[in-house]
Amino acid sequence: MSPDLPLNLADFEAAARERLSPQAWAYFSGAAADEHTLAANRSDWAAHRLLPRVLRPLSGSSTAINMGGLTLAHPIFLAPVACQRMAHPEGERATAMAAAAQGAGMILSSQSSVAVEAVAAAMAEPGAGPLWFQLYWQAQREATLALVRRAEAAGCQTLVLTVDAPVHGVRDRERRAGFEIPPGISAVHLAGLPPPPDSLTALLAAAPSWDDVAWLRQQTRLPLWLKGVLHADDARQAADSGCVDGLIISNHGGRTLDSTVSTAWALPRVAEALNGRLPLIVDGGIRRGTDVLKALALGAHAVAVGRPQVFALADDGAMGVARMLRLLRDEFAIALALCGCRSPDDVSRALLA
Amino acid sequence: MSPDLPLNLADFEAAARERLSPQAWAYFSGAAADEHTLAANRSDWAAHRLLPRVLRPLSGSSTAINMGGLTLAHPIFLAPVACQRMAHPEGERATAMAAAAQGAGMILSSQSSVAVEAVAAAMAEPGAGPLWFQLYWQAQREATLALVRRAEAAGCQTLVLTVDAPVHGVRDRERRAGFEIPPGISAVHLAGLPPPPDSLTALLAAAPSWDDVAWLRQQTRLPLWLKGVLHADDARQAADSGCVDGLIISNHGGRTLDSTVSTAWALPRVAEALNGRLPLIVDGGIRRGTDVLKALALGAHAVAVGRPQVFALADDGAMGVARMLRLLRDEFAIALALCGCRSPDDVSRALLA
Amino acid sequence: MSPDLPLNLADFEAAARERLSPQAWAYFSGAAADEHTLAANRSDWAAHRLLPRVLRPLSGSSTAINMGGLTLAHPIFLAPVACQRMAHPEGERATAMAAAAQGAGMILSSQSSVAVEAVAAAMAEPGAGPLWFQLYWQAQREATLALVRRAEAAGCQTLVLTVDAPVHGVRDRERRAGFEIPPGISAVHLAGLPPPPDSLTALLAAAPSWDDVAWLRQQTRLPLWLKGVLHADDARQAADSGCVDGLIISNHGGRTLDSTVSTAWALPRVAEALNGRLPLIVDGGIRRGTDVLKALALGAHAVAVGRPQVFALADDGAMGVARMLRLLRDEFAIALALCGCRSPDDVSRALLA
Amino acid sequence: MSPDLPLNLADFEAAARERLSPQAWAYFSGAAADEHTLAANRSDWAAHRLLPRVLRPLSGSSTAINMGGLTLAHPIFLAPVACQRMAHPEGERATAMAAAAQGAGMILSSQSSVAVEAVAAAMAEPGAGPLWFQLYWQAQREATLALVRRAEAAGCQTLVLTVDAPVHGVRDRERRAGFEIPPGISAVHLAGLPPPPDSLTALLAAAPSWDDVAWLRQQTRLPLWLKGVLHADDARQAADSGCVDGLIISNHGGRTLDSTVSTAWALPRVAEALNGRLPLIVDGGIRRGTDVLKALALGAHAVAVGRPQVFALADDGAMGVARMLRLLRDEFAIALALCGCRSPDDVSRALLA
Repeated sequence: MSPDLPLNLADFEAAARERLSPQAWAYFSGAAADEHTLAANRSDWAAHRLLPRVLRPLSGSSTAINMGGLTLAHPIFLAPVACQRMAHPEGERATAMAAAAQGAGMILSSQSSVAVEAVAAAMAEPGAGPLWFQLYWQAQREATLALVRRAEAAGCQTLVLTVDAPVHGVRDRERRAGFEIPPGISAVHLAGLPPPPDSLTALLAAAPSWDDVAWLRQQTRLPLWLKGVLHADDARQAADSGCVDGLIISNHGGRTLDSTVSTAWALPRVAEALNGRLPLIVDGGIRRGTDVLKALALGAHAVAVGRPQVFALADDGAMGVARMLRLLRDEFAIALALCGCRSPDDVSRALLA
Repeated sequence: MSPDLPLNLADFEAAARERLSPQAWAYFSGAAADEHTLAANRSDWAAHRLLPRVLRPLSGSSTAINMGGLTLAHPIFLAPVACQRMAHPEGERATAMAAAAQGAGMILSSQSSVAVEAVAAAMAEPGAGPLWFQLYWQAQREATLALVRRAEAAGCQTLVLTVDAPVHGVRDRERRAGFEIPPGISAVHLAGLPPPPDSLTALLAAAPSWDDVAWLRQQTRLPLWLKGVLHADDARQAADSGCVDGLIISNHGGRTLDSTVSTAWALPRVAEALNGRLPLIVDGGIRRGTDVLKALALGAHAVAVGRPQVFALADDGAMGVARMLRLLRDEFAIALALCGCRSPDDVSRALLA
Repeated sequence: MSPDLPLNLADFEAAARERLSPQAWAYFSGAAADEHTLAANRSDWAAHRLLPRVLRPLSGSSTAINMGGLTLAHPIFLAPVACQRMAHPEGERATAMAAAAQGAGMILSSQSSVAVEAVAAAMAEPGAGPLWFQLYWQAQREATLALVRRAEAAGCQTLVLTVDAPVHGVRDRERRAGFEIPPGISAVHLAGLPPPPDSLTALLAAAPSWDDVAWLRQQTRLPLWLKGVLHADDARQAADSGCVDGLIISNHGGRTLDSTVSTAWALPRVAEALNGRLPLIVDGGIRRGTDVLKALALGAHAVAVGRPQVFALADDGAMGVARMLRLLRDEFAIALALCGCRSPDDVSRALLA
Repeated sequence: MSPDLPLNLADFEAAARERLSPQAWAYFSGAAADEHTLAANRSDWAAHRLLPRVLRPLSGSSTAINMGGLTLAHPIFLAPVACQRMAHPEGERATAMAAAAQGAGMILSSQSSVAVEAVAAAMAEPGAGPLWFQLYWQAQREATLALVRRAEAAGCQTLVLTVDAPVHGVRDRERRAGFEIPPGISAVHLAGLPPPPDSLTALLAAAPSWDDVAWLRQQTRLPLWLKGVLHADDARQAADSGCVDGLIISNHGGRTLDSTVSTAWALPRVAEALNGRLPLIVDGGIRRGTDVLKALALGAHAVAVGRPQVFALADDGAMGVARMLRLLRDEFAIALALCGCRSPDDVSRALLA
């Protein structure tokens, strides 16, 4: 491999910093307040230590997983990231092409800068992973429903309701950079929908509740996941509600509330509380194949990566994202083997010290 | 918001460093000895991790608190800081105007460089928070009493006796800078009172004791708080004495004895020992809305901020202090919502990991 | 001692960095991925604290050990390191001369750039330590057997099968440097043997298993050790198998799987699980005589040093390696005495805090 | 106080670095190997957190202590440091003048560069602390006895046998600097005595044992202390032997064996094991009045300072040492008061968090 190409996910971040405008860099790389959670997301994966096994049979190894009836070539999803045309002219369409080529599931943001129909077309390839649609609750139920209907019509296979961001976080870096969405780029699905309330009081009054989740469950046959759960009691409530098909353990990449627990901290506690009742995806700070392995060891069925996808997109468009996914998957395959596992099913808590 | 305006409390500190003389900077920003406690006050809040709840009803949210019969728009006080005219020509009068505008309680230092009567006049606005008076024990009881009578006459609503500074701390940074109070500025309330003893032995002989607290209790009808308690046994003794109406958990901002426990460490232990018998305010290292939330989760009814008020005052006078208070209150309101709390009453230890 | 000569093992590393090509430096000094394990190997020895004893009889002190019937002048081995002619023209032959002069055991890599026969000749000196042969499992049993027969014929006294590297690790530093084995240097024992498979799937299918260990046990009368065990259950299985004569606790110097436990972490757990059933050598991060002492206190019978040998070789050939071994042995002798031990037999866990 | 004068003990270190030759700086400031113990000695005092008490009676405060029948103005001793004429032409005589002026006990090194008789003369002042004599065991008992007799004749009040240095430590910094004792300076008490053995084997054979302590006990009526004990079992043995009058908890300032426990770690364990059977002095890393307080809280009766005395001596001779002692004592007096203690007798473990 040429030493000039990115060798790991951190290389994409360095490359993107060169290519993105300072405003876009601040938006994509920054997080809330002092960015303690951003840092903890990363360092808490790194702090887990592996205790590998040796001399186990490795013939017929595979990275494939089965999650809630869905078979995937590997456990790596693309997390929802808004307005990717700020990173590359092709935006989410390029990301989707890479996801299709690498068999990765893609969770499209409802704030996508490319229409879901175009993204779905780019994903319509043999071997492609699934396309899921991330939903921000809108102040009016009809507006929320309009987004659901559009996602259904485009063929999205799952709805992912974000529940950890009733208000925008205190993003100092983004504000200091004077970030605004550049002209010519917008959240295309929100065009024509009412804008969000402009006072904190009104925003909070419009925030979704468990009642809204129950209502949403009635409106669609698509599987419904919640994204942004950290507390074991909330996870239990989700399972008890009967309305939810899976959870994404997430703190929004540290972008909403600073100094929350890291997702590596929350994951095993949620997994223990659920005891297998719901499938789990985790995002936040996953940068190495060993992080993927550790996430599985701590109870996740799959992981999602957010910032690395836009950094790779900024670096080299669809090729960059595909290379990023390939690197991460290869690292994961090697980590599996070096821990003595033939497949993700062999991964357990016993691999962690 | 313009990216040039301070975005958070740390920005005021950076701005003040530019504006203050090296001597005033050393005085306000420095602390005792190696400043370990100064650092621990900050880092121990940051080390607590939040475990937010999702999908809870947020309609009708408010930051208002009720503390010992007093209703306040939010739980943020201004801690006593001496000689604020070193930071800005208007000194404590400007600080008081900002406190009034933002509904913050102000605890005026007995070493104020502006007379309490002028400060009280600046606080006489609709919606203003309460004005409290901080008391340093004087070597003679009559001198102490003179300060009490003046505070009462000016309309102060509570007396706050500082108990953690029978002697001045070992403030290396301040001494290295050759700090002296500049000409034209003085602790106006102390004019005409006897100067403090000039030997350590005499200072210690004049230090206040529990007997003095009991005596002071007899002299005034104002509520009496103690400031500078860290040990749970001292807190219990205060409650048992029947002389004390509340406690400020404080280590004097790390300015008296270096390497004490941080206030974030002491607070939950004191709160547990008291079990609600006395209201608690905590100061030391509070710089973020999440710190306010954590303080409430650990048992405080309110917080006080010291250095940020003088840094903001140095930066932009009353406007600066008002902006600082507004930023902190807004961050607190957002943190509340993102933790699933409709009001400070919903905050509990369960929000901390 | 001249202050220009290396005073400790770190000095050899600094000297080697000056002398090696950037590619060779990256190869020898680098490790897998983010090199967390490389760092932990070092820092975890340093973190152990000694609790020395005083006034004990020290007359007749010695560093000699007895391990599985073998008497050695001291407990320091040279770990297998590939292709040492990249560090010095004389390569493994110079290293062997130093090992012989200092009474150190040498574990020759099957990827040696000098033939085992020449290395054995260099070790044929009075007082020399033993020559062991490290074995990488080859995809074909016949190829593996050919290596075994050659090692036997050359007089190697023990076989050491590496079990922690069924695939090459993700070595970012090495790849970034564009490392390739330079022209004129090669792994001479592998000439004429089939090359390793070039796909991950095929590599994993060819990886050794416990069955292969049992088969290998049948092929030779030499003692058989496993290198690369970290998990106590694998150690138990090795002892239960009856096929294994000793274990080298190793994570391959952090070069295969990043973020494994350090060897200082694994050693006491393996030692406790085995309870003396197998002799143990540990490598990874040993740089000081106190590290050797700590390793013995945690249950090892001896230690092995990898990188320091090539750094010393690069610095000054056989003289450098001899000096490195002498420094480490002297430091160990002094540490023994300062802990109140007359011999390695006196070392126990009680010396650690 | 002028901001140019040293404000704390660290200032003396900075000043000494300017004044000492690189060789003398390396000798006095350096320690063994990687200097982990040197650092831990300092950081482990700093890591203890104080939990001060308030409103306690402070009238009649004093720093005086009583230790084994000896009344001292404060609990600060000067630890033995060799060849102080390398720091200042007046050497140990200047140090003794300062000790006398500040009422500090002085433990003179047997490697003093000034004769004990001259030092004793300098200490013969009203209010001076006691003069003790530190003893390195000599290879011949007669030589040891000659040192004892000279110390007795000079009026030394206690013998302190160093037990943690049967061999010289691995002092890399000192060796790298090419340190040698400069011409014209020597350990004057050792003139005419046989030089130490020049092989490690012979050195170890000549090291003192418990039997030698018992012999020494028979030779003199002076109280006999041991210096260099860290292990609780050694402390118990000292008490059980009936030969020992006190212990100095010390790791030789980190100068003999690197990576031992810090003295702050060892002290409370030794104190608990002894339960008051022997008085304890602790040295190593004491730099602040709060460190003195913490040492007393952990069970020491007094502390000793080594490097600060030579740094102060290098900075300003006897005046420097006197100022250093005064600063430390004043800091201690203030720390006592701020913790609510009227005297060292009030200090207990309860002051530590």
